[in-house]
Amino acid sequence: MEHVSKINDELYMTTTKAPVNIAVIKYWGKTNEDLIIPANDSLSLTLSTEHLCATTTVAIGKKFREDRIWLNGKEESVHSPRLQNCLHEIRKKSQNHHAQDFPDWADWKIHMCSVNNFPTSAGLASSAAGYACLVRSLGTLFHIEGDLSGIARRGSGSACRSMYGGFVAWVKGTNADGSDSVARQIASSDHWPEMRVIILVASDAKKDTSSSHGMARTMETSSLILERVSNVVPQRMKDMTDAILKRDFNKFAEITMKESNQLHAVCLDSYPPIRYMASASWDVVNLVHRYNQFCGTNKLAYSFDAGPNACLFLLEESLPEVLALVERAFPTSRRDVDFFRGTPAVTGKMSQELVEYMAINPQQDAIKFAIITHVGHGPEPLDNPEAHLLDIHGYPK
Amino acid sequence: MEHVSKINDELYMTTTKAPVNIAVIKYWGKTNEDLIIPANDSLSLTLSTEHLCATTTVAIGKKFREDRIWLNGKEESVHSPRLQNCLHEIRKKSQNHHAQDFPDWADWKIHMCSVNNFPTSAGLASSAAGYACLVRSLGTLFHIEGDLSGIARRGSGSACRSMYGGFVAWVKGTNADGSDSVARQIASSDHWPEMRVIILVASDAKKDTSSSHGMARTMETSSLILERVSNVVPQRMKDMTDAILKRDFNKFAEITMKESNQLHAVCLDSYPPIRYMASASWDVVNLVHRYNQFCGTNKLAYSFDAGPNACLFLLEESLPEVLALVERAFPTSRRDVDFFRGTPAVTGKMSQELVEYMAINPQQDAIKFAIITHVGHGPEPLDNPEAHLLDIHGYPK
Repeated sequence: MEHVSKINDELYMTTTKAPVNIAVIKYWGKTNEDLIIPANDSLSLTLSTEHLCATTTVAIGKKFREDRIWLNGKEESVHSPRLQNCLHEIRKKSQNHHAQDFPDWADWKIHMCSVNNFPTSAGLASSAAGYACLVRSLGTLFHIEGDLSGIARRGSGSACRSMYGGFVAWVKGTNADGSDSVARQIASSDHWPEMRVIILVASDAKKDTSSSHGMARTMETSSLILERVSNVVPQRMKDMTDAILKRDFNKFAEITMKESNQLHAVCLDSYPPIRYMASASWDVVNLVHRYNQFCGTNKLAYSFDAGPNACLFLLEESLPEVLALVERAFPTSRRDVDFFRGTPAVTGKMSQELVEYMAINPQQDAIKFAIITHVGHGPEPLDNPEAHLLDIHGYPK
Repeated sequence: MEHVSKINDELYMTTTKAPVNIAVIKYWGKTNEDLIIPANDSLSLTLSTEHLCATTTVAIGKKFREDRIWLNGKEESVHSPRLQNCLHEIRKKSQNHHAQDFPDWADWKIHMCSVNNFPTSAGLASSAAGYACLVRSLGTLFHIEGDLSGIARRGSGSACRSMYGGFVAWVKGTNADGSDSVARQIASSDHWPEMRVIILVASDAKKDTSSSHGMARTMETSSLILERVSNVVPQRMKDMTDAILKRDFNKFAEITMKESNQLHAVCLDSYPPIRYMASASWDVVNLVHRYNQFCGTNKLAYSFDAGPNACLFLLEESLPEVLALVERAFPTSRRDVDFFRGTPAVTGKMSQELVEYMAINPQQDAIKFAIITHVGHGPEPLDNPEAHLLDIHGYPK
């Protein structure tokens, strides 16, 4: 069995690492809460697992008495409906396709262990990477071929997009059972090699309203969400796909920013209104628009999800200047930690003209740190036995 | 001539005071910039002139060499298109109807002098009261009968609503020339005597984007504004009128808050996005929703315009408790000025249960002061000669 370690006749395990993704056409609102069918298509960039990823080991063992899961070193309940849905769907597919291969496994239990290489509290869509990683691991363990994004979707909607690298669309589909609500790669991870991503981690990372509750409230109470899902997003999916395929950064940036703003607009149109953008987020918004104004074209784009962190998109050529901009706008008082993390990069200099035009009012420590990264691959198996998070008995190392 | 002082054969003057109004169905967007035809109907409460008003004296004199205007003690240009439009429309009406009465006045020039009894910088829709006051004064001077709200509209859109007291609708109309885009009283100022209004003046009163520019940008760039003006507002106009006529405060409050939120949602959906709500505004939003949650019904509503000030609506019975709430949420460090202004009112006590439920995190000095007021009348002439702002030569006193 490819990528599966046989520990002994009664214990098999496999380990996967899976990426985070950042939506540029936003997912906000479900038409079916249980099946997690989204109200509109969405589109994201998969980020490199070098800097942000989930790692998951799954093991199946004859002696395991029950399914168990450990997340970031802490055992959690396996009885969450979302986790149960994933396990159920995987076992169903495994029985359908491979009953003859694994006759013994039908009653065996599964141990799952997952860690993120970034703080969950940073609000960086950890559940997307986590569920993509889990489902991909289970798929490998049970040797299930073909697309599993529909199963990842049952764990966390946006997880389906982390099942592929590069530029990924999640189509809402038309089937009532959600069977065609799956992810599809629009362009591979090497399609637009100049694309860079900087994640600005805001200091105040507390989230008031979970995205699940937030989007449910929006669907129930916003009088603008229907216009968005019916008319605005379908057009933007076409325009964004086009911009990506043509590598038109100016257009990509414009749609990305408009999408971020509209997500937060429908949140504000909800009742009671939902607010995710903090004061520092608006500092980023204003900084980016002013910089683009100076450049005469969009060289930089922002995107905000259900939290105050900002995600910046830019091309490699703009990186030195943008880092200088970020450093000046959000100076850090902490000397003990690196402010810029991820891909090593050289901070450039702002021209005197740019300095004067920007007239930055620095917000010390509004941004805790920044992660510089790029577009990357989908989930990948880790074949080195050292990578397993479970020991030879199937328990966390 | 009623309400007009004849100073001598060559100089006549009249003085008016006119109210501020606060929209509960918001005006945001024009279909004709020059004629100031709004994209949707709107609805407002006219506030008592006891606490907030504009006072304007207009004089017509044979010896005046040109039209002149003084605003809050400072001479301003009379050549602004909006002022010219008002003067032009008034002179046209005056010639149409009364050419026989005032044969001499055709070439006489006009001096105008206007003051607000509140700081313009407080962002309290001073232009609405100002233009209503000016147009009403000119109407009195020229003895023009009938509705003048269409002319006030040419000065500042929302000024047309300040031409009536009580609860006032501004219908967008259907005529291309704007001739039926006028204000209409929905209910008089004594229709709902328990209604109270508290204006919380935010400390940071700087406005980034003027409302004129803001609404133009929204009309040009928001992909949600059309849905708002075509479908959302027409229904809300009906529901709000109904709530007012039935004195249904719970419903009134809900629509008021949803309208405020949607105004700011379409601002955020504009490109680049427009932000008027400051951090203190959100403190107010959260305070009000939490209080209503505690009460089990809407006892309090907020509304925000193109600035950070909050307008609260409530019934008289809730006033003592709400004042206690405001005092606790926004303590002032200034001992030298009154925090609560306007109608004298007794601050009540919050029950221990309410204190615990609210769990207020006080924001000292986020609110500079508060004005307690109520629904009032439309513009009124001031017949006391002492009230004139121009002296017997027609110049500012």
